[in-house]
Amino acid sequence: MSHNPFPRIDGRQPDQLRPISFTLDYTQYAEGSVLISWGETIILCNLTIQDGVPGWMAGQGRGWLTAEYALLPRSTHSRTQREIHGLKGRTQEIRRLIGRALRMSVNLNLLGERTLLLDCDVIQADGGTRVASITGGYLALAVGLHKLIEKGIIPAETLCPPIAAVSVGMVDQRPLLDLNYQEDSQADVDLNIVKTAQDLYIEIQGTAENQAFSTASLNQLIALADKGIREIISLQEEVLGAL
Amino acid sequence: MSHNPFPRIDGRQPDQLRPISFTLDYTQYAEGSVLISWGETIILCNLTIQDGVPGWMAGQGRGWLTAEYALLPRSTHSRTQREIHGLKGRTQEIRRLIGRALRMSVNLNLLGERTLLLDCDVIQADGGTRVASITGGYLALAVGLHKLIEKGIIPAETLCPPIAAVSVGMVDQRPLLDLNYQEDSQADVDLNIVKTAQDLYIEIQGTAENQAFSTASLNQLIALADKGIREIISLQEEVLGAL
Amino acid sequence: MSHNPFPRIDGRQPDQLRPISFTLDYTQYAEGSVLISWGETIILCNLTIQDGVPGWMAGQGRGWLTAEYALLPRSTHSRTQREIHGLKGRTQEIRRLIGRALRMSVNLNLLGERTLLLDCDVIQADGGTRVASITGGYLALAVGLHKLIEKGIIPAETLCPPIAAVSVGMVDQRPLLDLNYQEDSQADVDLNIVKTAQDLYIEIQGTAENQAFSTASLNQLIALADKGIREIISLQEEVLGAL
Amino acid sequence: MSHNPFPRIDGRQPDQLRPISFTLDYTQYAEGSVLISWGETIILCNLTIQDGVPGWMAGQGRGWLTAEYALLPRSTHSRTQREIHGLKGRTQEIRRLIGRALRMSVNLNLLGERTLLLDCDVIQADGGTRVASITGGYLALAVGLHKLIEKGIIPAETLCPPIAAVSVGMVDQRPLLDLNYQEDSQADVDLNIVKTAQDLYIEIQGTAENQAFSTASLNQLIALADKGIREIISLQEEVLGAL
Amino acid sequence: MSHNPFPRIDGRQPDQLRPISFTLDYTQYAEGSVLISWGETIILCNLTIQDGVPGWMAGQGRGWLTAEYALLPRSTHSRTQREIHGLKGRTQEIRRLIGRALRMSVNLNLLGERTLLLDCDVIQADGGTRVASITGGYLALAVGLHKLIEKGIIPAETLCPPIAAVSVGMVDQRPLLDLNYQEDSQADVDLNIVKTAQDLYIEIQGTAENQAFSTASLNQLIALADKGIREIISLQEEVLGAL
Amino acid sequence: MSHNPFPRIDGRQPDQLRPISFTLDYTQYAEGSVLISWGETIILCNLTIQDGVPGWMAGQGRGWLTAEYALLPRSTHSRTQREIHGLKGRTQEIRRLIGRALRMSVNLNLLGERTLLLDCDVIQADGGTRVASITGGYLALAVGLHKLIEKGIIPAETLCPPIAAVSVGMVDQRPLLDLNYQEDSQADVDLNIVKTAQDLYIEIQGTAENQAFSTASLNQLIALADKGIREIISLQEEVLGAL
Repeated sequence: MSHNPFPRIDGRQPDQLRPISFTLDYTQYAEGSVLISWGETIILCNLTIQDGVPGWMAGQGRGWLTAEYALLPRSTHSRTQREIHGLKGRTQEIRRLIGRALRMSVNLNLLGERTLLLDCDVIQADGGTRVASITGGYLALAVGLHKLIEKGIIPAETLCPPIAAVSVGMVDQRPLLDLNYQEDSQADVDLNIVKTAQDLYIEIQGTAENQAFSTASLNQLIALADKGIREIISLQEEVLGAL
Repeated sequence: MSHNPFPRIDGRQPDQLRPISFTLDYTQYAEGSVLISWGETIILCNLTIQDGVPGWMAGQGRGWLTAEYALLPRSTHSRTQREIHGLKGRTQEIRRLIGRALRMSVNLNLLGERTLLLDCDVIQADGGTRVASITGGYLALAVGLHKLIEKGIIPAETLCPPIAAVSVGMVDQRPLLDLNYQEDSQADVDLNIVKTAQDLYIEIQGTAENQAFSTASLNQLIALADKGIREIISLQEEVLGAL
Repeated sequence: MSHNPFPRIDGRQPDQLRPISFTLDYTQYAEGSVLISWGETIILCNLTIQDGVPGWMAGQGRGWLTAEYALLPRSTHSRTQREIHGLKGRTQEIRRLIGRALRMSVNLNLLGERTLLLDCDVIQADGGTRVASITGGYLALAVGLHKLIEKGIIPAETLCPPIAAVSVGMVDQRPLLDLNYQEDSQADVDLNIVKTAQDLYIEIQGTAENQAFSTASLNQLIALADKGIREIISLQEEVLGAL
Repeated sequence: MSHNPFPRIDGRQPDQLRPISFTLDYTQYAEGSVLISWGETIILCNLTIQDGVPGWMAGQGRGWLTAEYALLPRSTHSRTQREIHGLKGRTQEIRRLIGRALRMSVNLNLLGERTLLLDCDVIQADGGTRVASITGGYLALAVGLHKLIEKGIIPAETLCPPIAAVSVGMVDQRPLLDLNYQEDSQADVDLNIVKTAQDLYIEIQGTAENQAFSTASLNQLIALADKGIREIISLQEEVLGAL
Repeated sequence: MSHNPFPRIDGRQPDQLRPISFTLDYTQYAEGSVLISWGETIILCNLTIQDGVPGWMAGQGRGWLTAEYALLPRSTHSRTQREIHGLKGRTQEIRRLIGRALRMSVNLNLLGERTLLLDCDVIQADGGTRVASITGGYLALAVGLHKLIEKGIIPAETLCPPIAAVSVGMVDQRPLLDLNYQEDSQADVDLNIVKTAQDLYIEIQGTAENQAFSTASLNQLIALADKGIREIISLQEEVLGAL
Repeated sequence: MSHNPFPRIDGRQPDQLRPISFTLDYTQYAEGSVLISWGETIILCNLTIQDGVPGWMAGQGRGWLTAEYALLPRSTHSRTQREIHGLKGRTQEIRRLIGRALRMSVNLNLLGERTLLLDCDVIQADGGTRVASITGGYLALAVGLHKLIEKGIIPAETLCPPIAAVSVGMVDQRPLLDLNYQEDSQADVDLNIVKTAQDLYIEIQGTAENQAFSTASLNQLIALADKGIREIISLQEEVLGAL
């Protein structure tokens, strides 16, 4: 995509990611802990490894993975109330997406009867929190499983190659990669994609926000996301190399 | 798509829809009532039109639309418990999808400060309940808004042309249109698409169930869904013509 | 009761039932499924048969029966909200009544350690939903138990002869059989009676709505209900004969 | 009813009430406070008078009455858990019965826009708690309304003549008046009746516990209850005379 | 403390307790039942002894003690709503305090795998309900454990010597012992102390209500509380002597 | 206190605080944001300033302050579940303590009808989270109110001089200042104190964990806490000087 004469509100090119960085072992007690900073979005991804699996799958010798997600109250511009009387639909939807996606990054048959529980707590939310949770969450899994692999408790193949996610969208008729909060709130189409390092799809979720979109737009957005995910997976692989 | 030598479990071709029919005015008290039978899936779509809108959008002169969805306990093979202590994530996700999709089929600016509340109650669930809810729900909206249009309360343009939805999926490496429950539970990829009569996308949601999928598979599934949605919209238009 | 010069709002005689019909096997997955249409009231009665009994009665070799009841949101003239944060008193009261009454129609000692769970979902409510649930529920039990009896799993005596229920009330000083919604909302006395085919009482519940009532009124109402229940049990026996 | 050769477990005749006494002004802060001791059953009936009525009846100039009921945890032989996560069906059923019955003892049109809220807290439960709550509750109403009447705030006719309630039942084929807990748990039929001082019915609720009952039994039980209620109303009138 | 020229609103000296009395065996079914009257505050303390302990401490051979606390709705000047949708913070705080304090009065190692569950239900609240619950609760424990000790089920040392609690506070710059409700609502400092018969502290909780307080004030209040607790323990010992 | 031959598990002297540091403006959106690191305990204190006050105090021209507190799931050694179905007693107790203490650090009469809502989210918990929340929370208040003071919206006196809190306890008979998690779990006495810069008490809460404690122990602990609080307030004043 060539240089665009109308830069984005934060000066980025349409096909440019925000800066992404990972802090490993951010907290001490989790089995795997990664803080992901993605532009102004900051999320703490903490992995808990528990013996045993939920009752409905006990005795099969297989493992399980599930995820939780929450916004800290002032991660958002105006305060978001804590969900202490049941979860909102948006929260449940994001929890389910993160868990579903990351289950594709672990070989549950090799994990044994263990449960991987990933907590994604959003410290600051400037758009893209669900894709950052998946992207950072993969690394928290990697950190945690690495320890079990090193101890010979599970085989190295239990951890699959990286998966990553990104959001793309149509804003003022322009396809943009990696929307921040302000862009996201103006987008006509919002598309989140999760892919593997082998360039295969795990999830594609596109929604018309104000107007329905054409096949041409869909294809443009998919191409943008592909580019972004390849770049993000390179960043993840760099981190994994240092483990 | 040519004749396939390995027919589907119910004898259909890979690109063949199950029989779909609509019973208008199935119940008496709702402002719009449509029973949709889609194969063995049966859903009652009832529209309530209320004066006023939720507090956060009051005073703007615009209308709102929201949807609820529930499985009757024995709509399913084994009994599904009633959600009397909060909604499950799956239910919330489907409610949100139906509402989001159908808001694209109504011009809320022309509706005035009214709320359209669509109840989708599943009497029998043999796969595809969310796409059937959207498809039948559009007709319940049409029936209910038609009465207001006839009375001159709202302009005819308040109701947009039909939208419809369908599910497609990869089962045993084959792309299949309109999965029933048994096919759905064996699918490696599950894709739900909502489109307009103008062939534009409202929603696309694809999920890898057991293995990630390629761009080629994605494109095959999208093409199948396109075909199915065009056929369904024809059926809707037939019903609308008789209003 | 002789011909009355002031007919009821739907043209019936004071001692005349509304038309009642039963659709057996209305849905496919329940162990017993009966749709009861009683005037404009429509209720789906679905039986689930589960192995095992609640913990407090386990190990006694006896079975159990329990019932659930819910109004679909637009079964009523104005929309009734779903009870997703706990049940209302009215709902709990009706659930308890249906369960208590139908436990008298099954020999729980012969049933073995099984639980009969009856779901009564009201599709349209024009008065008398609790008595219709009991009346239709008996047939759903009969359909479901019949299958176990035919397979020799339980003895034929497990199912007792029919029970049925009806509502009667004083409206404008007149005793009326089988109140519809409009009559019910004007009644000074509302009496629901459940009886057996042997003409014995299972439940009698009478309530003064606006003014207390005399022994004479009570006796008139009881006589009316007796007549109605005999007619309803004839209808049930007809259906049972065809099983 | 003549002397019976097989006395009841507490030595009473079949048609004999347990001793009933009322302590007025048992606590200091309620607008009306009555402790009713009925055999070993002890209930504190406290009336709160609040300005205003629930929203759905505001502006009509009429008053409202509602009741709450709870068992203290060790009012029962084995401990009953507090209902801190929603009310049980039994509790809701009893609350509704008490409120419905006592609304017939107050002229709500004369009360003005006030709400009478009656709390019935069971300190010890030896059967008959719902009928004791109604019987004692009437006196708590009387005490509370008497003060408003004396101050000329409401007319004397706002308080109707006494209402009282009693339970009767068939135990070992014998009709018995005023069942205690042990008798109640063995009864084949359980009947609760609420009547006015003018000998009119407010509520009749009869339930077959183990076997259906005949018209003859029903009539015997009704006659027993009549006798009991007349005696209880005499006791209430004595108390009222001293106000 | 010498005679004070400005008596308290109820005529007491600053260092004078309100009259305290205990009614043992107030109800029949609890394993230990004590009604404590403390000035106008009245609380029913009922002990339940259950076999077994919570799951997290099973198998250790030790016992457990826990407490519940509730205000009856009209124990208070204006009605307090029942906590039927979760407990308020104040209630939970008091429950935790009572349980924590009374666990120090029982040798849980000698109790065996039993749970002591103490219900403190406030019939009338005129200040000091938490300290009265602890003080009366100790006696309910004593009554209940005494029976097990007499039967030789647990050793006599299972019950420790008495513990008691009292509130003190600064009102209009004066340190006062045993605040009633009116004094409590005007206090600048509110201090609750729990001590043993051996003059040791179990709990000290002091809170500035309107203004922070000095070390001198703290010491004055502690001295006042010491005096009060010694007197209360004498009263408890008198009751225990009669067991 | 002289050098002790048996150092603490982390090498500290008995009267030595852990290192405490504050990061101001840790997040961007809160009106005041402070991250407090206190040994290994890390808490994010975020202030929200809202117009208006709770209904029960509206119209008085005064402000209000309230606090929320939560543990992130892996702030603890083993995972702590999110409180999504109501708050635990411990959480409510800490919320109430933080709010009560910090209300003494703001002149609510000068604040106007505004609500200060402080969120204390524990990222890592190594003991002392409630006292760290109060100590860090004061600075978050200072940061937030400073902006209003600078704009002349509220007078400078609205913010009172610093308050701080610390925990002390008896571990193996030794009084220790500022317990970490391991010491806290072994302590026989646990005492939390909140004081003002003027050396006055706001709150004192001491609890015997395993054995009751003497007046001598209480006095030793109070002296230790005094020393610690003076040091902490110096640190706070340093930060305030830089505002």
